Amino acid sequence: MRNLHIVKVGGNIIEKDEDLQHFLDLFANLEGPKILVHGGGKLATELAERLGIAVKMIDGRRITDAETVEVITMVYGGKVNKHIVAGLQARNCNALGFSGADGNTIYSVKRPVKNIDFGFVGDVVGVNSELIDKLLDIGITPAFCAITHDGKGQLLNTNADTIACELAIGLSKSYKVTLNYCFEKPGVLIDVANDDSVVREINTSKYSELLEDKIIADGLLPKLENCFYALKGGVNKVQLGKPEMLQNTNTNFTTLRL
Amino acid sequence: MRNLHIVKVGGNIIEKDEDLQHFLDLFANLEGPKILVHGGGKLATELAERLGIAVKMIDGRRITDAETVEVITMVYGGKVNKHIVAGLQARNCNALGFSGADGNTIYSVKRPVKNIDFGFVGDVVGVNSELIDKLLDIGITPAFCAITHDGKGQLLNTNADTIACELAIGLSKSYKVTLNYCFEKPGVLIDVANDDSVVREINTSKYSELLEDKIIADGLLPKLENCFYALKGGVNKVQLGKPEMLQNTNTNFTTLRL
Repeated sequence: MRNLHIVKVGGNIIEKDEDLQHFLDLFANLEGPKILVHGGGKLATELAERLGIAVKMIDGRRITDAETVEVITMVYGGKVNKHIVAGLQARNCNALGFSGADGNTIYSVKRPVKNIDFGFVGDVVGVNSELIDKLLDIGITPAFCAITHDGKGQLLNTNADTIACELAIGLSKSYKVTLNYCFEKPGVLIDVANDDSVVREINTSKYSELLEDKIIADGLLPKLENCFYALKGGVNKVQLGKPEMLQNTNTNFTTLRL
Repeated sequence: MRNLHIVKVGGNIIEKDEDLQHFLDLFANLEGPKILVHGGGKLATELAERLGIAVKMIDGRRITDAETVEVITMVYGGKVNKHIVAGLQARNCNALGFSGADGNTIYSVKRPVKNIDFGFVGDVVGVNSELIDKLLDIGITPAFCAITHDGKGQLLNTNADTIACELAIGLSKSYKVTLNYCFEKPGVLIDVANDDSVVREINTSKYSELLEDKIIADGLLPKLENCFYALKGGVNKVQLGKPEMLQNTNTNFTTLRL
């Protein structure tokens, strides 16, 4: 099976154009078939504020109302996605931007209302990997923003980590997939304040150990749950770290395997 | 050669969601391979106003500065394009959104500065029809917004009529192309106030006649120049009229041939 890199780039990197350009340099240099996945970080919140759209929260959870999903579509699907695509084209990487609605690649359902109505938030139901497969075969690099659709005309705000994870699982049928989460930290750290304390390898038993020792907590917990969900779904390995890990040099980063 | 419909939908239709949905019904029902092209009408101006971005004009011509091209990217490439793609998916039409940067499909140059610096406005240099061809072959319907790129990372605001025209010429090598301009009028009118005064057929000699009689003037002149440029470039025929003409019923519309 051929190798495939799926790379999710974090919000902090996207927010600073200098960091984004550096990331795009590294991503464009990755050999072989690859897919980029991005959200938009605080850029959507910034636009909402400029437009006077209030951020709605219930029990500390953010609600995506009709106005907010429109802002997200403009920022993630328009501004950020097209900026990334044009930036990759300038680096001779033949990128093509996608939301999940495009080519019906990722379909989802509006999150069912239990205690909280999250609004226009999508839980992924499935990935149509056939079209993506064909595009990868002819040298296209799909660039996905964090938007899916319900098949009935509604766009849905969807977590970018989840999109990367679902794409990775969907494409594991035909590729040996490495799923990369690029963010501002060099990986899973024993001591959050010390970038040299990276845990280089995590497997299922090491994961349990880290959980018991409370090394993995807060924001990292759902991320790592996603990673193991991907591995159990057929993904070959998951890597977490700064964009430099894409160069396969001696940089510190975390590798996860079952 | 197979038939291909390229349909440019006008700004007035996009601005009212009811009209847009009606247009999408008609477009989705078109048989065979097809491409949609859209701008965003006044929706970009509305967003610019809400953001306090002043419209810059020189000698009555609009200037696209850095802030404006960003607004256009958000509105045309994000909000409008994804809304259209999701709407077509809901109608079982497998749409895939494009700017000219996506797949490097339409590349352009920033309009050279003569008397006026128009800013980030693109004059189309070429169309890569190969990728579009392959997508049409597997049942994908490309939906293009009015944005191109310069291959160096810069997105450029580009006239949607021109994009439709250049795509039609580029694809004429492999298809018998009908180029459709859908707008709020039923076609070229002898009397602008009378929708029943449609000129049904215009060829080169009829065109000269209409020009002499000053029937074609103002906004229609560049549109018809575009049409004849397309016909001379190999497009089979051009149709102008209300969206209903896509149904090929007995509605009034204008057909142009050489």
